[in-house]
Amino acid sequence: MNGAESLVHTAVAAGVRVCFANPGTTELDLVRALDDVPGIRAVLGLFEGVCSGAADGYGRMLDAPALTLLHLGPGLSNAAANLHNARRARSPVVNLVGQHATWHLGADAPLTSDIAAMAGTVSRWVRTVSTASQLAGDVAQAVASARGGAGGVATLIVPADCQSGDAASPARPLTAEPLAQVPVERVERTAAALRQGAAAALLLGGRALRQRGQWAAARVAARSGCRVVAEVFPARMERGAGLPRIERLPYFPDRVAASLAGLRTLVQAGAAAPVSFFGYGGTPSQLTPEGCALLPLASPEEDVEAALEALADALDAAPVSSVLGFDQEPPPAGEGELTIESVGPALAALQPEGAIIVDESGTTGAGYFHRSSGSPRHDYLALTGGSIGMGPPCALGAAIACPGRTVVNLQGDGGAMYTLQALWTQARESLHVVTLVCANRRYRILQLELARAGVASPGPLSRSLVDLSRPRLDWTQLAGGLGVEACSVEDVASLRKALARAFAEPGPHLIEMVMADG
Amino acid sequence: MNGAESLVHTAVAAGVRVCFANPGTTELDLVRALDDVPGIRAVLGLFEGVCSGAADGYGRMLDAPALTLLHLGPGLSNAAANLHNARRARSPVVNLVGQHATWHLGADAPLTSDIAAMAGTVSRWVRTVSTASQLAGDVAQAVASARGGAGGVATLIVPADCQSGDAASPARPLTAEPLAQVPVERVERTAAALRQGAAAALLLGGRALRQRGQWAAARVAARSGCRVVAEVFPARMERGAGLPRIERLPYFPDRVAASLAGLRTLVQAGAAAPVSFFGYGGTPSQLTPEGCALLPLASPEEDVEAALEALADALDAAPVSSVLGFDQEPPPAGEGELTIESVGPALAALQPEGAIIVDESGTTGAGYFHRSSGSPRHDYLALTGGSIGMGPPCALGAAIACPGRTVVNLQGDGGAMYTLQALWTQARESLHVVTLVCANRRYRILQLELARAGVASPGPLSRSLVDLSRPRLDWTQLAGGLGVEACSVEDVASLRKALARAFAEPGPHLIEMVMADG
Repeated sequence: MNGAESLVHTAVAAGVRVCFANPGTTELDLVRALDDVPGIRAVLGLFEGVCSGAADGYGRMLDAPALTLLHLGPGLSNAAANLHNARRARSPVVNLVGQHATWHLGADAPLTSDIAAMAGTVSRWVRTVSTASQLAGDVAQAVASARGGAGGVATLIVPADCQSGDAASPARPLTAEPLAQVPVERVERTAAALRQGAAAALLLGGRALRQRGQWAAARVAARSGCRVVAEVFPARMERGAGLPRIERLPYFPDRVAASLAGLRTLVQAGAAAPVSFFGYGGTPSQLTPEGCALLPLASPEEDVEAALEALADALDAAPVSSVLGFDQEPPPAGEGELTIESVGPALAALQPEGAIIVDESGTTGAGYFHRSSGSPRHDYLALTGGSIGMGPPCALGAAIACPGRTVVNLQGDGGAMYTLQALWTQARESLHVVTLVCANRRYRILQLELARAGVASPGPLSRSLVDLSRPRLDWTQLAGGLGVEACSVEDVASLRKALARAFAEPGPHLIEMVMADG
Repeated sequence: MNGAESLVHTAVAAGVRVCFANPGTTELDLVRALDDVPGIRAVLGLFEGVCSGAADGYGRMLDAPALTLLHLGPGLSNAAANLHNARRARSPVVNLVGQHATWHLGADAPLTSDIAAMAGTVSRWVRTVSTASQLAGDVAQAVASARGGAGGVATLIVPADCQSGDAASPARPLTAEPLAQVPVERVERTAAALRQGAAAALLLGGRALRQRGQWAAARVAARSGCRVVAEVFPARMERGAGLPRIERLPYFPDRVAASLAGLRTLVQAGAAAPVSFFGYGGTPSQLTPEGCALLPLASPEEDVEAALEALADALDAAPVSSVLGFDQEPPPAGEGELTIESVGPALAALQPEGAIIVDESGTTGAGYFHRSSGSPRHDYLALTGGSIGMGPPCALGAAIACPGRTVVNLQGDGGAMYTLQALWTQARESLHVVTLVCANRRYRILQLELARAGVASPGPLSRSLVDLSRPRLDWTQLAGGLGVEACSVEDVASLRKALARAFAEPGPHLIEMVMADG
């Protein structure tokens, strides 16, 4: 067998099932190996940011890596923005980046560039394969690295001659490094602090936002009276009727400060300390209030679920059945024009059981989140790294990961323009993804930021640079051009009809929501 | 004034006139400065690859840098693929990449990443600004670096507090390093080799492909009997009726070898030694034939135009009026269905005087190039770095650079999908860009590569990964969704009508050419 075949055999043995691919000439042996060695589904993306964003969504849903297959340095750089989000989400991802044959690198052919340096900026593990016979072992290591701990991005650079050269055999899967356990002293110290009864909150992040962590946090809260708060951009949060209703940290720093005001103890449970998303003059980076102790229970790289359960046990907290305030019903769907306040309830009222909500909608998403805690059970995936263009690919990857479920991509138009190519793959793979484009036809967040910066009347250029209305983006035509059925709605009644239809029919749909505000 | 204002003042004084921008929160002070300080036209791109590709096209046409304005590391990574092409084209480009405030970097907020490491992979000059007062000087240095020598990509990373902080004054423009002069000994040695009369060729690259270099090369050829060959992917080649007709090096290595067979001397005039684009087993990296001496006259970083003139003088070559075989007429436009052989002549017959041809069409472009040497005078811009998605943004930038001229983007559909967002900016700025999408609905080059690799019957997965027909991309809808008037044609007669209309009307047009082959 050749190196490429040994790679695929090894990846299959290590549990890899999907490859999001945009190959070129230097990856053709890998393409042929994917044909010859069964076990991996290859999904074509028409832009590499689609592949990496899809792998991120897939990894978030399954805690298992998909492969990406990328064409040299430029392919990796096109993938990098969504790999940045994956890195922040701690998604397991294995990038396979083709490279010129080792003997050809010195020729400095046009596509030659420093792939390893670029990979280093978005990966926690990078290796360049040096021989065909080592390739299988390198792949086993890459998969284990992606799976290790809380998960991460591993990038393997694979020269063409290492794909085509002779390899003896595949490599056995390696055991991934388990999540680090939290020392009992930290649990005891946290329990002691909570027993004192001062105003406290648990800040949940990472895997603490899965059901298991939430139930443990609910026990702690019921026993100690502390608040439970989710980080602002969770990689994946399980939500819905019957699960604890958990507040979410706001986005803007002044609102974070207001939310945390009065706390004496903030327990980090899988979450980084709250920091400002951007550095604003006059606002500190660190948003933990003065006089509030920051108490690390578990870092995002540690087993926060076990730590929360240990904390609940240390507090002698009873099992919780109904303590944090549950919603059992979604809100009424409302009516009227489409606004931040009306879109959220409409979606929350209609979303089916088991939906996966991929939210890259900024302002509109905020109106959805706090209205949907009583919706049928669902997963909520946010923009972890702030790099826009995550939504459509992430929704694609989540749909590949969870074929029986409906994926809803609540999506700003600005971000959607970054990776609209994902719609084509959604159509090609007949995925049940419903894309809700919030067409406010502007970079609304930048208008808010200009206002926050005290710019009462922005100049013509500032106004122009945040204005997407000349010409108007027509999302029904864009979706149609990519093979996705689409419609445009301007009021809640039409949105409800369109949602009902999109949820009932197979395959992808796009609904352009012409926002009256937002 | 603040740092951002000092930046804009300095850039204007250094001759910068255009900024291709996709700003975010960390760049808002720069946006405001662009409003407050006149002199720079800001052009919004809806994806950073549009901004960088546009700056590449602008730089190729004017030999002067435009700015890009990019949002932190993810913005730069989205721009990087087209910066790779710009790097290979030696285009002068100045990237301004926003960064978190210096005091906020330590917070490791979500958008934090190693921008300098990423910038290093696509730039020849990188600097991170450290204070507001140094910003102006850093900008002057960035512009001079971009202009220096043959031109290059300079990247300046600008923390938000260096934009908003106090700055004393703008900085004066710095003198860019001139092109290095070629030593007279090298000219003499080249002249001596050509005088011997053995089979020889001049390989022209970089600035040797401007008129001045071509005329000097024509004199040398007329005197010595040598051939004149252009590098395969010129950044910018002046062409058309009345200019010397110059062969172009083929793409595939076996054809390059056939083209150069029998040569005893190959003179490098602004061109790298011919190498294989990819490393194919059994084919060498270096394609200069055995027994052929490679004689460096001028590197791409040296003043090749002066060197060619000195060479012509050293050979006592007469001024040339008509020596290399001129075409004075374009070919007849032909008829029938759309093929590699029929599209080229149709465009060559109809393109207006002074057109700028941006060619990212691969196979179809080859059919255009050798038929258009007798077309009206035009510029020809190729895919220098092999990173697809260059065409639509490069055409946009060329149109901004040369407002009186018609830009034609001869474009493969695979590459067009990478940066279709550029069409929106073409519409917004009412640019006279005519995009000809070669809709072969496949990655044709990969099918050729599979065939070359001896894969007679590719497996289902290999076939699927090069097939863009399920679902069919509908370019009239895609263009319409982005505000660009579009039509689809299936034969030469319809293509001619569509071209005539697009050339006659203002603003951008897209013509989807449904290829019968290609």
